[in-house]
Amino acid sequence: MSFKEKIKGIGGNASYEAKARVLREQLEAKLPAGLKLPSAILEDPPLDITRIAETCGLLTVQELAITELDATAVCQKIAAGELTAVEAVTAFGKRAAIAHQLTACLMDFFLDEGIKQAQQLDEYFHKEGKVIGPLHGLPISVKGHYALKGTVGCGGFLVNMETSTEDCDMTSILRSLGAVFYVKTNQPQSVMHLESKSSYGRVLNPHNTNLTAGGSSGGESALVAMKGSCMGIGTDGGGSIRCPSAHCGIYGIRPSSRTTPTHGNLWYQHGQDGVFPSTGPMCRSARDMRLFLEAVLGANPSLRDPDALPIPLKVPDLTQKKLRVGIMMHDGVVMPHPPTMRALNLVKEKLEASSEVEVVDYIPYDHDRGYSLIRELYYEDGGATVRHLLEEGGEDMHPLTEWVISPPHVKNHDAAQIWKLRDQRDDYRREYSDHWWSQNVDVVVCPPFQGTASPHDTTKYWSYTAIWNLLDYPGAVFPTGLVADPTVDIYQESPRPMSAADEYNISLYDAAIFKRAPVSLQTVSRRFNDGLVLAAQDVIERILQS
Amino acid sequence: MSFKEKIKGIGGNASYEAKARVLREQLEAKLPAGLKLPSAILEDPPLDITRIAETCGLLTVQELAITELDATAVCQKIAAGELTAVEAVTAFGKRAAIAHQLTACLMDFFLDEGIKQAQQLDEYFHKEGKVIGPLHGLPISVKGHYALKGTVGCGGFLVNMETSTEDCDMTSILRSLGAVFYVKTNQPQSVMHLESKSSYGRVLNPHNTNLTAGGSSGGESALVAMKGSCMGIGTDGGGSIRCPSAHCGIYGIRPSSRTTPTHGNLWYQHGQDGVFPSTGPMCRSARDMRLFLEAVLGANPSLRDPDALPIPLKVPDLTQKKLRVGIMMHDGVVMPHPPTMRALNLVKEKLEASSEVEVVDYIPYDHDRGYSLIRELYYEDGGATVRHLLEEGGEDMHPLTEWVISPPHVKNHDAAQIWKLRDQRDDYRREYSDHWWSQNVDVVVCPPFQGTASPHDTTKYWSYTAIWNLLDYPGAVFPTGLVADPTVDIYQESPRPMSAADEYNISLYDAAIFKRAPVSLQTVSRRFNDGLVLAAQDVIERILQS
Repeated sequence: MSFKEKIKGIGGNASYEAKARVLREQLEAKLPAGLKLPSAILEDPPLDITRIAETCGLLTVQELAITELDATAVCQKIAAGELTAVEAVTAFGKRAAIAHQLTACLMDFFLDEGIKQAQQLDEYFHKEGKVIGPLHGLPISVKGHYALKGTVGCGGFLVNMETSTEDCDMTSILRSLGAVFYVKTNQPQSVMHLESKSSYGRVLNPHNTNLTAGGSSGGESALVAMKGSCMGIGTDGGGSIRCPSAHCGIYGIRPSSRTTPTHGNLWYQHGQDGVFPSTGPMCRSARDMRLFLEAVLGANPSLRDPDALPIPLKVPDLTQKKLRVGIMMHDGVVMPHPPTMRALNLVKEKLEASSEVEVVDYIPYDHDRGYSLIRELYYEDGGATVRHLLEEGGEDMHPLTEWVISPPHVKNHDAAQIWKLRDQRDDYRREYSDHWWSQNVDVVVCPPFQGTASPHDTTKYWSYTAIWNLLDYPGAVFPTGLVADPTVDIYQESPRPMSAADEYNISLYDAAIFKRAPVSLQTVSRRFNDGLVLAAQDVIERILQS
Repeated sequence: MSFKEKIKGIGGNASYEAKARVLREQLEAKLPAGLKLPSAILEDPPLDITRIAETCGLLTVQELAITELDATAVCQKIAAGELTAVEAVTAFGKRAAIAHQLTACLMDFFLDEGIKQAQQLDEYFHKEGKVIGPLHGLPISVKGHYALKGTVGCGGFLVNMETSTEDCDMTSILRSLGAVFYVKTNQPQSVMHLESKSSYGRVLNPHNTNLTAGGSSGGESALVAMKGSCMGIGTDGGGSIRCPSAHCGIYGIRPSSRTTPTHGNLWYQHGQDGVFPSTGPMCRSARDMRLFLEAVLGANPSLRDPDALPIPLKVPDLTQKKLRVGIMMHDGVVMPHPPTMRALNLVKEKLEASSEVEVVDYIPYDHDRGYSLIRELYYEDGGATVRHLLEEGGEDMHPLTEWVISPPHVKNHDAAQIWKLRDQRDDYRREYSDHWWSQNVDVVVCPPFQGTASPHDTTKYWSYTAIWNLLDYPGAVFPTGLVADPTVDIYQESPRPMSAADEYNISLYDAAIFKRAPVSLQTVSRRFNDGLVLAAQDVIERILQS
């Protein structure tokens, strides 16, 4: 498949195609002419495109150095007067323009506005001698369905594409904390795939473009991995922050739902409150997750959103307490692919060898049941709303959309059936809570996915992330530093499927296909123990790096 | 109407009547023979029956003195060794037996078990020299639909009456804190009236038995007002703690939902999560509300209930800050009856005269719309479940049940309609939050009802409490010390109805009917500001009493 074919977006009828083309051309026109990659590169780029920004000659040495920084370093340097907000957004913005040409990661580009915003912040800093907030001057990339005044966004379909007239709570709060906006990022049709293909294109994994960047915050993960952003904001209702972060080898945390701002996001099933999405950061270091959560929660989102929960972020001091880490090797339904098992074994060994933590085996509790419940909860109307929006817009239904709204999991419900379903959800949560305590763990380290990033259009099992959405347990994804290696990541013996989903997953595995894919893991804790996840992540990383 | 007729419960077909009779006889049999009131009293008691326990000669002077104590005093005296747990539960239990004969306030009576539990606590105290928890030895009465091991309970219909095999979270936590159980209290059919008539009888208002004790925690309010309990636990999904507390002249707080334990309560629409009920105390002093909330939240309900919210109770120090009190005279839909307006004017005057607080007029925001929304949310199935349970049990439908499940507010919904309804709920909450801030108040003092306690079977407007359920704003009800007085509580001029509901409310008013009814008010604050409600209540009371 040619690169052009690979990166191509979703099609539709003539009216759809015309509208989609206009939007794509508007975006193209906003990318500075001087940042267009040579056609020689675009016609046949290598599978691993992560180095192109460094070698293409379009960025200065200083710009390349800035884009190597994590968000914490950017904020520190700006606060110390060693870097201006304009320099920061310019560097990340230019690199974002390059990233988009190689990964289709953007939906809107407005570096000029970002520079204007940055200039005002620099002036403030110069005049007042202090920062305006904890994120002063930090460029933040924004997933498509966050509303951001004056920029293009949508709730997952071309038909509901709009230019937002105001900020949602998240972008408004980030703006008040000093963040600078310059791009909106791509997301899949329906915002409910763990891949990311829309009318703007299919988002490619920078480490291996034959693989997905994950979804639904796949534009963010590709952009952050390409270093066109050091901090992006994603949303996660079934894995949409964690899956793409894992696939692209970056960090991402799904906070307990309703602790971070969600009001005002663009969406197509408002009032569907059977499970709540979470909003959170995607970034390049563990400390950046904490930077983000402390800043955003410090702004008290519940003061403006009556549905937000004012639960304080408590990051415990783990020097006084021996952390109990449960290791969940698999969920009892689908066995992860060999690269993930290799990473899990390595991490387990390292943790066991450390005196800092106590390691136990964590036994999953009926994840199959939980996953079935959340799939049923997503589309209690049997997917009618989705079908209607596609029809209205003349948009082709992506096979993963068809899959996610289809029986047996998805069906239409009346009121009594909805109550019953939600009661089953509550029962499962209660049983799981009892189970968690029976395991006597503080956190669980587990796969974030049944392998590394998948080949395009194949992702049909979300349970490694979605189960924690159903339970509303916070989870952070982190890169292990390992990448899939066809020379070692092979099944030692012919695998025996545990389920139909497992059989499908085994069928997808061919070591050569996954080459260079980052191998990531997930740290999870009980609902509202977001601070414990952050603290545990620090301990785990310190051990892994020692 | 004879007293016997007035106190009579809900009827049904022959099979229903037989089952109901057995249950009533079982309860009667549990009341100690020595505590039966003379038939002379029961045949024609006075309208105000609050003094009968003191004058009937069935309680000792010491028992009468104990039952005058509030919960804080009971706990303090037990902890100081001045009172035993056995003495406490015996006194309240005996007085409860008397109260029941006059008000139909009970559903189960098990003083013997309570005494056994109290003996164990006394032994512990004697042996260890300390209390087992903050509620050590405190007798607590329990509303019917809380599950309490070994006692009768139900979710609102005879057909789902059961003897519970385990405690719900609330009773389990209270037990662990040292509480002693001895009675379960009566509640209405469906647990969704602001009155309380069931197969066990109609709960009468102790201050005037021609009036309702309120509902749905009407057994509790009558019992506490009769001093057969100093602390009861109610539930409140539309006013069910606050309305009966107001009607009987006691204190009651509806905490923000999901902060106090709700799991394991008996119910008939599990999974109906459009609005959440709250659980909270009904008691005889403002300080007892705080005692209860600090004790229960101190036990961390969210550790066992994954749906509970670990939001800390913060009671602010108001000596450092001038409290801004909004006064809401009426909700713009129904004008409260003259006694309530007299109390509101008095409180407003006293607060305005104080330098401790700043008083402003609070303007309600579209309460009519909010009330319509919550009525629609209660029965998204159009009331089908209720009809089915009544039919299954052969139970007559009470007119207030018919009213609460009827159009235009109540109708059957499909999934898309439920989402739409819940989206409308969220929109209203958001708009209300903006409105609240525009009013620049810390708390609002407002009526808890469109008057004092109503004549039986007439309560059809819940908005003075239910609006705060929809918004999930915590609210405490407190007695003003005033009682309805036919000589002064008359309309100064012929009232002009603001709405059909107002017209109905005006039609109910005849000053003579409401004689001696306590006049109560309500203090409300924004969601999760439960501690602010408690702190404000103290300030307001101090001013009223000065």
